[in-house]
Amino acid sequence: MQKITLEEKFHLIKSYWSPKIIGELNGQYIKLAKFKGEFVWHTHEDEDEYFQVIKGCIVIHFRDHNIRLNEGECLIVPKGTEHKPEAIEEAHILLFKPKATAHTGSMEDELTVPVEKQDWI
Amino acid sequence: MQKITLEEKFHLIKSYWSPKIIGELNGQYIKLAKFKGEFVWHTHEDEDEYFQVIKGCIVIHFRDHNIRLNEGECLIVPKGTEHKPEAIEEAHILLFKPKATAHTGSMEDELTVPVEKQDWI
Repeated sequence: MQKITLEEKFHLIKSYWSPKIIGELNGQYIKLAKFKGEFVWHTHEDEDEYFQVIKGCIVIHFRDHNIRLNEGECLIVPKGTEHKPEAIEEAHILLFKPKATAHTGSMEDELTVPVEKQDWI
Repeated sequence: MQKITLEEKFHLIKSYWSPKIIGELNGQYIKLAKFKGEFVWHTHEDEDEYFQVIKGCIVIHFRDHNIRLNEGECLIVPKGTEHKPEAIEEAHILLFKPKATAHTGSMEDELTVPVEKQDWI
């Protein structure tokens, strides 16, 4: 059992849109990701998704509106909701997700990282 | 679907050691709590527990060592691990827990808030 320092973990992340696992509890993963630019439109059919902005600012696009999240702000995107995250500048994000979730949902894209290749840091 | 501003939510919390629910996803609650002073020794037999320090500093006591967590630091306490949180000064904590977890674990104490009375803020 060791404490996790978020800033140290973010230093280890070298690529955008590639969530890394920092902890596991109760069948859930705690993940960190760096966002920059636009991700793909996607939907998680079976899982709600949690975004917590640790540093920077992101915009979650929905088909009919956008939600901007600054540092210290969070959003739960309900399952089945199509969305597209975007970050103008690099942003640091904490995610809570069930162990089996693919980060692009049901959408297969060149940015998709298969669940079995999701790395711990 | 609305964003959650952690600082605003913490302003609504008036008592220590009384976690409040700010979100629900995938059978889990995201909770916020203010810690000050010493909590009770307790064990969660069936659930791992996640502490993320949003503001301040806490110490998690174990029977054979302590772990100090500053702002931006996290700890997962594995199920079955007896522990006692403490905060010298007021600290703001984010917790990620299965919906059914009592915050004092199997320990019934005057500080215990029954699961059914855990409030949303």
